[in-house]
Amino acid sequence: MRTKPQPTTSIATSDAQRILIRGHDLVEDLIGQVSFTEMFLLQLTGQRPSAAQVRVLDAVLVTLMEHGITPSVIATRLIYHSAPDALQAAVAAGLLGVGTTFIGTMEGCAANLEEMLAAPEGVEARARAIALRHKEAGKAVHGFGHPHHKPDDPRTPRMLAVAEREGVPGRHLAALRTLSAQVDDVYGRHLTINATGASAALLGEIGIPQKVMRGVAVVSRSAGLVGHIQEEITRPSAVYIWETVDEAIPYR
Amino acid sequence: MRTKPQPTTSIATSDAQRILIRGHDLVEDLIGQVSFTEMFLLQLTGQRPSAAQVRVLDAVLVTLMEHGITPSVIATRLIYHSAPDALQAAVAAGLLGVGTTFIGTMEGCAANLEEMLAAPEGVEARARAIALRHKEAGKAVHGFGHPHHKPDDPRTPRMLAVAEREGVPGRHLAALRTLSAQVDDVYGRHLTINATGASAALLGEIGIPQKVMRGVAVVSRSAGLVGHIQEEITRPSAVYIWETVDEAIPYR
Amino acid sequence: MRTKPQPTTSIATSDAQRILIRGHDLVEDLIGQVSFTEMFLLQLTGQRPSAAQVRVLDAVLVTLMEHGITPSVIATRLIYHSAPDALQAAVAAGLLGVGTTFIGTMEGCAANLEEMLAAPEGVEARARAIALRHKEAGKAVHGFGHPHHKPDDPRTPRMLAVAEREGVPGRHLAALRTLSAQVDDVYGRHLTINATGASAALLGEIGIPQKVMRGVAVVSRSAGLVGHIQEEITRPSAVYIWETVDEAIPYR
Amino acid sequence: MRTKPQPTTSIATSDAQRILIRGHDLVEDLIGQVSFTEMFLLQLTGQRPSAAQVRVLDAVLVTLMEHGITPSVIATRLIYHSAPDALQAAVAAGLLGVGTTFIGTMEGCAANLEEMLAAPEGVEARARAIALRHKEAGKAVHGFGHPHHKPDDPRTPRMLAVAEREGVPGRHLAALRTLSAQVDDVYGRHLTINATGASAALLGEIGIPQKVMRGVAVVSRSAGLVGHIQEEITRPSAVYIWETVDEAIPYR
Repeated sequence: MRTKPQPTTSIATSDAQRILIRGHDLVEDLIGQVSFTEMFLLQLTGQRPSAAQVRVLDAVLVTLMEHGITPSVIATRLIYHSAPDALQAAVAAGLLGVGTTFIGTMEGCAANLEEMLAAPEGVEARARAIALRHKEAGKAVHGFGHPHHKPDDPRTPRMLAVAEREGVPGRHLAALRTLSAQVDDVYGRHLTINATGASAALLGEIGIPQKVMRGVAVVSRSAGLVGHIQEEITRPSAVYIWETVDEAIPYR
Repeated sequence: MRTKPQPTTSIATSDAQRILIRGHDLVEDLIGQVSFTEMFLLQLTGQRPSAAQVRVLDAVLVTLMEHGITPSVIATRLIYHSAPDALQAAVAAGLLGVGTTFIGTMEGCAANLEEMLAAPEGVEARARAIALRHKEAGKAVHGFGHPHHKPDDPRTPRMLAVAEREGVPGRHLAALRTLSAQVDDVYGRHLTINATGASAALLGEIGIPQKVMRGVAVVSRSAGLVGHIQEEITRPSAVYIWETVDEAIPYR
Repeated sequence: MRTKPQPTTSIATSDAQRILIRGHDLVEDLIGQVSFTEMFLLQLTGQRPSAAQVRVLDAVLVTLMEHGITPSVIATRLIYHSAPDALQAAVAAGLLGVGTTFIGTMEGCAANLEEMLAAPEGVEARARAIALRHKEAGKAVHGFGHPHHKPDDPRTPRMLAVAEREGVPGRHLAALRTLSAQVDDVYGRHLTINATGASAALLGEIGIPQKVMRGVAVVSRSAGLVGHIQEEITRPSAVYIWETVDEAIPYR
Repeated sequence: MRTKPQPTTSIATSDAQRILIRGHDLVEDLIGQVSFTEMFLLQLTGQRPSAAQVRVLDAVLVTLMEHGITPSVIATRLIYHSAPDALQAAVAAGLLGVGTTFIGTMEGCAANLEEMLAAPEGVEARARAIALRHKEAGKAVHGFGHPHHKPDDPRTPRMLAVAEREGVPGRHLAALRTLSAQVDDVYGRHLTINATGASAALLGEIGIPQKVMRGVAVVSRSAGLVGHIQEEITRPSAVYIWETVDEAIPYR
């Protein structure tokens, strides 16, 4: 007994001769003609993206790919050492860390921008309300501040410049700048727009829904983690990491 | 007590003002200037790739991204339904299926090509030996044959044509064609070079090590799975899948 | 530069001759003397549990292990087919479904019980407030109701009877019954206490912190999934599942 | 078009009033009457186990649960910090490390024991052949040797004693001892039977198929990892681990 009507998919279909993805012939129209990033946007939105949208997504994917020795990288290297015949598991272990603590702030920032853009009282008034609400609750405003990059995250102005150069509509960029001004004013000091905040605005500009933005980070980070596996193959670190951590946390 | 010398990394470093990835300044040299695929090759190999290498990798990434309702897609949709607040876990669940049964054949094909290219007796003689060895063992030759795409996988000629158009060295392409001729001769019938076989040759042409090739499939597939999550958000299928499978496997 | 004081662990240590877990000698005191469930409680709480606590945890672990063809089971069977050499990945894929949609209700129920037990106005008054709050918000009260088991989940009375037989303190059991009465009254119809609701009360009785309760379900379910992998090895279903789902979701 | 006959399951079924698992009524026959370990054996084998089989499995599950700060534990703690709202993902990340490098030796040992027990020339002759084969190939014999526990792994004699006390048939235990004598003789020095070797023999004695033995380790380790998450909640170590590893692997 089915409780739901039959679902359908509009992503892909194939027969012996032909593979259609989002209505386009994979062989005739896509392989050799579109980049990974263009294909990703087609897969995600169902629409052939503009060149500008592709470049904006590339800017986000390039920014988020690699951050040095992160928790995800450590997990991936250790799991690769434990199961080197299952490379996919090592990548998956690291990707499980693309969660609320780090990349979740991108979604929180995007939600704030969407709230501002939909507010009947106007973007600026709602920006101030958001900043005040967070300050009163003693919570950080998602997308602002950075533990190492002070006073300013160097990635942010470049990311915003790319989006402006590409001529995106600009509503999310403007909202982010408005929110930034209100945050600085309400908190009484300058808090940098960080790279996840900028990512939220850029992805908003090219129509990526807020609920799936984390997926963009997952894709970008998967490439970063594969690079670390390749380095782990040629310059193994996992046993050293293990011994170092074991020594660093004494039994008491 | 450490049993190993201290490992180092040459992937990334940063300070308050600057982020270096593979020796390049992320802000000055990369964001807004390179595509995801170019950045992935830089991350993976440590070298700025040529435009040809980027386009060849794009051809592989575009080909492998999406295959309709696969085991990985079903796993991702069901896990997303079970834990919608942890999108990364849904992608990870699907990626855990990028294993030996499907994508492992790419690695097997790449190993055969490398064996041929290193054989003192020459590529053709070793190709025949490989075909004979597999036939006698009753095993499929990795990278050949396809359950649905008969007589030929339509993706393969396009993928090989892209690589040739881009002017790659061509040794892996030639080896794959040599192996194909010997496989047809030894098995006494035509077995198509499939898309994973072609992927093995293309990735070999651009210097991706055989041991990390599965990672390229993982990255590509991650983008495909994010597309299915977006469709699942707007057109949910998970409960229907669950009920359908539950009915399809009776208790006995 | 470390930003935090050095952490320590009190779980385990070892030297060449001896392995200590939670202060007990693994060989002398534990292997052959304690059951898995007793060991799990020792690992989790740092204390040797009473026989009653062990039996209550056993009741929860036995109840949650197996539920037929669930989303987690389908994911595990499909991923096992895709990567049969990495059994751990197949279990992990299924466990990723032990999330908010299903087992999260156990945590929600436990949070409600803890809120009631800490309420200055008394358990019953707070139970009524909780029921009203959920009804007004149009939300289900976690731990109540079941789509198939009507009018009552048959597992619940047995689970509660086990806890009572074992002589647990009983505050969480009483709170759950109080909440049940208020839920029925506020909603104007009988909503069964389901097995996750009963699990929340039982785990509360034996001192399992609410934030780690999901981990008990993960452990129990891992055993269930290993059973399905064993059946999949001897009676494969994955290809059939795949084909069935592919047919069930047409391209449109 | 289905390519396979319809599969069936004999694990579980339910209706509104009743849940049957392996033919037993969950409420009437199992909850409150069997331990987790007994239920796990029923789930895995379809048979109600003897008390001896339960105690032998308990010995293995207790032995494998906890090993201090392992790669799996580090991965779990880091991923928990990154996504604390998805506890199941943190456990899954650690379980992905239950792979070939560590626990795979249990399966290798079990395969050797099964090869010996099936050998027409007898157990001892095949044991010698196995030892010689590994020595000539320069490979470790799975289940023998330990980096820290020298000269002998203290867990092994206790595990074997438990199995003997419980009166298991004893063929796998005898085979393991025969293999041990031949390994010492062929290698010309004493190599301890380690805990994974002993686990292989004990699981063989109670009828756990070699192909699913890794699953027993996965279940046991899942409980260990939940204990580490609970410690991480109360005494966080993840940021310290991250900073320590980042410092330990310099950029060069």
